[in-house]
Amino acid sequence: MKLFSFWRSLATYRVRIALNLKGIVPEEVIQVNLMKGEQREAAFRAVNPMMAIPALIDGDGPALFESLAIVEYLDETHPNPPLLPRDPRGRARVRGLAQLVAADSHPLIVPRVREYLEHEFKFDEASVMKWCRHWHTAALTALEANLKDKATGRYAHGDAVTLADICLASQAAGAKYFNIDMAPFPTFMRIVNELSAIDAFARAHPAKQPGAPANL
Amino acid sequence: MKLFSFWRSLATYRVRIALNLKGIVPEEVIQVNLMKGEQREAAFRAVNPMMAIPALIDGDGPALFESLAIVEYLDETHPNPPLLPRDPRGRARVRGLAQLVAADSHPLIVPRVREYLEHEFKFDEASVMKWCRHWHTAALTALEANLKDKATGRYAHGDAVTLADICLASQAAGAKYFNIDMAPFPTFMRIVNELSAIDAFARAHPAKQPGAPANL
Repeated sequence: MKLFSFWRSLATYRVRIALNLKGIVPEEVIQVNLMKGEQREAAFRAVNPMMAIPALIDGDGPALFESLAIVEYLDETHPNPPLLPRDPRGRARVRGLAQLVAADSHPLIVPRVREYLEHEFKFDEASVMKWCRHWHTAALTALEANLKDKATGRYAHGDAVTLADICLASQAAGAKYFNIDMAPFPTFMRIVNELSAIDAFARAHPAKQPGAPANL
Repeated sequence: MKLFSFWRSLATYRVRIALNLKGIVPEEVIQVNLMKGEQREAAFRAVNPMMAIPALIDGDGPALFESLAIVEYLDETHPNPPLLPRDPRGRARVRGLAQLVAADSHPLIVPRVREYLEHEFKFDEASVMKWCRHWHTAALTALEANLKDKATGRYAHGDAVTLADICLASQAAGAKYFNIDMAPFPTFMRIVNELSAIDAFARAHPAKQPGAPANL
């Protein structure tokens, strides 16, 4: 497998966690520097026309795209440990929590959105930060309410790690980028602290990737 | 089943299509008027803390949320006709196309985002429209490139309707709201035209729902 990755990408962090949980080591990890705009270069556009990472090439391709689609692909091709519960209702809850992060929150704060606000609408740095914090916090608030449900256990859904936990971890990393006060989200933080003790999560963290600043 | 719906909601349109394809008629369809902010009222917040539709209650369960999670739930509990291909690579492509709409594009143009731009950053109507058209077009451009793949058939993936087509239909409805020139997206439009001839899609369309303006 070939993974297109960048230390700061929260969506790629999700795929890295899944790869680690499944014990898969990609033969190649290709860095796509989002800060230099390498995702918009022709070479990468041929891989993913959406100009976004992650992308994953398994065997003779073509590239898979969108983090949750990739994680479910890994789960279907490498079933152990499973990243979704068996019952449809539980699977819907886990996918719902995951999409609350990966659809309702994260797409609003990615580089292309921040750059468009800056270049096209002349947002200054403080306004971009306010924007990011607003959407990140909205999702954290909804997650915390959802995680008060009795279906939550040691992790986001019961006592086994699922796709929802992978997304919680990425949301927590984003909260650090945006320096968000996490006091209102104790259930979320309890689970994230559990997750950070798991080697597959710790090794996948943005701060542990090539190119990450030492003080992250 | 109880569906929380509103004519204009593109995410709910996706769930309505899936229900129609599966031949499921919810006992109750509860209108949540997004234009009046009913999604933020306490009664609905208890259903979905994210204050977003769709939400679906099946039996005595807690509400399911997030359109793609709900559609996959319907697919798992009512397998015919299937909305995903059988092979993992095909499933990843279909989910990737669906998420390109439901994660990379649609979350940027929903009411809460438009309202935040207006109220907090004083965007006028023209700027909000520019914003919506920009993100909607970015996803259409990526979809068109992806749909040029040989895996595309009569529909987005082969010759059977999938979750990807459901999302294409919602993207096409959004393109009408934003009056986007569709000439650069001939493959997308060919498929959307095929889909609009299918009764399950036609009946679910925003224009056919209670409360929709007559001239939509």
